[in-house]
Amino acid sequence: MTDSSSQAPRMAAEQNTHFPKTAQEAIGQVVLANRILGNEGILDALGHVSVRNPENANTFFQARSISPFEATRDDILEIDLDGNVVTQTTMRPYGERIIHGAILKARPEMNAVFHGHFAAVIPFSVTNTPIRPITHVGSFLYQGVPIYDDYEPGGGMLIRTKEEGARIAKHLGQHRVHLLRGHGCDIVAEDLPRLVASAVYLRDNATVQWQIFVSGEEPKYLSAEEARAAMEIGFFGAGAIDRMWGYWVARVKRSMPDMKD
Amino acid sequence: MTDSSSQAPRMAAEQNTHFPKTAQEAIGQVVLANRILGNEGILDALGHVSVRNPENANTFFQARSISPFEATRDDILEIDLDGNVVTQTTMRPYGERIIHGAILKARPEMNAVFHGHFAAVIPFSVTNTPIRPITHVGSFLYQGVPIYDDYEPGGGMLIRTKEEGARIAKHLGQHRVHLLRGHGCDIVAEDLPRLVASAVYLRDNATVQWQIFVSGEEPKYLSAEEARAAMEIGFFGAGAIDRMWGYWVARVKRSMPDMKD
Amino acid sequence: MTDSSSQAPRMAAEQNTHFPKTAQEAIGQVVLANRILGNEGILDALGHVSVRNPENANTFFQARSISPFEATRDDILEIDLDGNVVTQTTMRPYGERIIHGAILKARPEMNAVFHGHFAAVIPFSVTNTPIRPITHVGSFLYQGVPIYDDYEPGGGMLIRTKEEGARIAKHLGQHRVHLLRGHGCDIVAEDLPRLVASAVYLRDNATVQWQIFVSGEEPKYLSAEEARAAMEIGFFGAGAIDRMWGYWVARVKRSMPDMKD
Amino acid sequence: MTDSSSQAPRMAAEQNTHFPKTAQEAIGQVVLANRILGNEGILDALGHVSVRNPENANTFFQARSISPFEATRDDILEIDLDGNVVTQTTMRPYGERIIHGAILKARPEMNAVFHGHFAAVIPFSVTNTPIRPITHVGSFLYQGVPIYDDYEPGGGMLIRTKEEGARIAKHLGQHRVHLLRGHGCDIVAEDLPRLVASAVYLRDNATVQWQIFVSGEEPKYLSAEEARAAMEIGFFGAGAIDRMWGYWVARVKRSMPDMKD
Repeated sequence: MTDSSSQAPRMAAEQNTHFPKTAQEAIGQVVLANRILGNEGILDALGHVSVRNPENANTFFQARSISPFEATRDDILEIDLDGNVVTQTTMRPYGERIIHGAILKARPEMNAVFHGHFAAVIPFSVTNTPIRPITHVGSFLYQGVPIYDDYEPGGGMLIRTKEEGARIAKHLGQHRVHLLRGHGCDIVAEDLPRLVASAVYLRDNATVQWQIFVSGEEPKYLSAEEARAAMEIGFFGAGAIDRMWGYWVARVKRSMPDMKD
Repeated sequence: MTDSSSQAPRMAAEQNTHFPKTAQEAIGQVVLANRILGNEGILDALGHVSVRNPENANTFFQARSISPFEATRDDILEIDLDGNVVTQTTMRPYGERIIHGAILKARPEMNAVFHGHFAAVIPFSVTNTPIRPITHVGSFLYQGVPIYDDYEPGGGMLIRTKEEGARIAKHLGQHRVHLLRGHGCDIVAEDLPRLVASAVYLRDNATVQWQIFVSGEEPKYLSAEEARAAMEIGFFGAGAIDRMWGYWVARVKRSMPDMKD
Repeated sequence: MTDSSSQAPRMAAEQNTHFPKTAQEAIGQVVLANRILGNEGILDALGHVSVRNPENANTFFQARSISPFEATRDDILEIDLDGNVVTQTTMRPYGERIIHGAILKARPEMNAVFHGHFAAVIPFSVTNTPIRPITHVGSFLYQGVPIYDDYEPGGGMLIRTKEEGARIAKHLGQHRVHLLRGHGCDIVAEDLPRLVASAVYLRDNATVQWQIFVSGEEPKYLSAEEARAAMEIGFFGAGAIDRMWGYWVARVKRSMPDMKD
Repeated sequence: MTDSSSQAPRMAAEQNTHFPKTAQEAIGQVVLANRILGNEGILDALGHVSVRNPENANTFFQARSISPFEATRDDILEIDLDGNVVTQTTMRPYGERIIHGAILKARPEMNAVFHGHFAAVIPFSVTNTPIRPITHVGSFLYQGVPIYDDYEPGGGMLIRTKEEGARIAKHLGQHRVHLLRGHGCDIVAEDLPRLVASAVYLRDNATVQWQIFVSGEEPKYLSAEEARAAMEIGFFGAGAIDRMWGYWVARVKRSMPDMKD
């Protein structure tokens, strides 16, 4: 039997993408991403996720101001990259949707954005310990995780103005992840499955890295070469991404059997 | 589309309160608060929560001596601020209801009290490490968290006399939270949703603060200005509180689908 | 309204016991204790619990060699204090039932024994850090927690001979808890509700004590006077014990709604 | 009553094995092992488990490229020891099945292999702290846990060539467990119940060992004599293995009541 899996080529966008072709598919996928992130404990009541509209690169889809765990298709708003709600509705959007628009504007090659506050990243956001890849599933972190600390005075550490959105996008630059000091993190990815994978394994990498850090031991991190190869061949390969997304969807269906789409 | 969310004013009690208008609503809300605190693992068999009677500022509602997880509407007692049970019943009240009455008497601007023992606060209660805000959702802690250690000799570290209740209220003073050495914490808030949010994020802030503390690193805490703004604009804003309460209620309904009100 | 709860007298065995009057009640209670300990994560597949036969002080009830989580009334064996199975059955008993018999023989005032390996006690069993009461719910530990390390050579660290059972009972002495080096702990109590409470809060006290220990801070422990009063008035008082047992039973019923008695 | 349990002889393969006699039984057992490892949180979307074919020592059974949590009988492939899929199918195998074949080829006395990445082993894989037995249920680790760090350059730290498979098997040698630097671990055992037990208690031993390590205390480990006896008489004895496997199966059935075989 031919074994294509051991000959996996480097990631090529055309064959490897999980970014949908239609708006309807994107809406369905962002509903699932919301529930997955709630179900896996990555987001609680707060934090949010978005996906670019495949039919209009200048808008994105995101839940109204509701906990991700509860989101259904009826809760998804279309929003432009400046944060204006396009959907005709009285539903309230997230105040920090500005982050999503600003990053999607600055990163045309990317299609999905995460903003959240899970505990594992917090120690790194308030100390001088940089997050680095400990294992192959942390490989996507190899280009570094800078810390944003240029908040609007009096703004409550929330990102809600276009000006601060632009600063956030500029600070993220070409990274996949940055931290917001005393607040949380933003993540960007090619598509929602890779975004959710990034959030889950950022948590796992940060958790174990801090456990090692408190011991005083200096771990052997992945080298940049190891990490890039691990990301391209393994972690972000279509096989692994399909397996992870399938797993998270199966878990959501098991824990929320009654929830409508 | 107009975006009111990015123009959120400072918290104004008249528009922002989640304190109910009627006794019946308050009873329903305190039942939910009990179940939420059990479901989120903030309270186990021990600990309790109360809400002032909106129709009589001199009484409050609280479950009988039962685990919060199990409380139903039929288990709620009306108790006066000295700890006397007003409800005509043979049901047994919590011995430490005295804490709730004493604090509600001393803080007329507040309407909800929590007393519990969750593990995250214990290290801070027996060492000299003060709890401070690490993130925006710990912002409500910015005025400090003092430690009570003036127990009645021979009283088993329980607060069950009017005299000690008065000492507890005096020690809490104008703070939102204080710790009881080797015992747990008391929390006071404007309403039950803000009280539950305070308990959940006190846990999260204390957990991550201790994880940082054991590393020997000195974190960058929120400044008092940052914290006050974060609390007023973000964490305690109506939008965030609605989202959090909705989330916790949705989780209770999912885990206890059969439980009567 | 009269408030008997604030006048709670010191624990008096005759009014405060939760040790049943009949063998049938004791069997039902030990089934519940098995399920509770499994459901609360105190025991996994290994470890066991027993209760003295109220109708014959020289025998006790214990599940056959099965995980506590799965035990039903049909799985309970009657065993004498030397470890002989009295029940006419081919069902296999636990090898370490010898621990239970030996302790019940040496402690006629006690009626329930626990043996388990939960992770929280292990660090204390292999280092020189004594477990001490950090909070009021750890108060029952105030007389100290010695470490047994006198294993039968070649016995695999299991306690399965009468001689070693006697050494175990002698080492426990008048303590409520001792540790077995590199193995786990034994606990003895007046009745199964107090035994389960001791296991749960030994876990919680040990967990938080170790978290403090790794920080290098010296906590303020409960004094012996504080601890004895906290145990007698609060933690082991009938009100608290009823509330805890009711809570654990309610949780078992919720997570195993279909399980027969 | 005769008590055979206290006279348990040293493990003898002929009476003590849990390796099935037929291919159909082995397939059913590997489905259960997959679900157990998912249900116990030992494997998430990634990682895999295999069992030798009892009817052909040169092939093994393993799920197709799917999360272990989701595996059913229809997902099990037969694969030869060089990694060629024998089953007539278009289903995709795991890329790292090469690990399983290589180890089963090198260890004819063993019949089951695990490869996974659970967090507890990671700190030991990137520092110089060797895993050692802390308790009797970590006894199977007494011969040491070496760290593999001889990855194919540019291979993304995945083991997918026959050459690297051979290096992995050689590095594992006669050990039961080795770590892969910055990646995870491989485990080998006589049968699937002993393999699952090894994975679960490797996690528990590593977790508590790291908690002790960060304190700076030097624990008293099991001596080699203690550990070998504890493994042979206790942990890997038929009684304990039956009890553990029964427990994990009961938990799977409880959490996945609807899942077909």
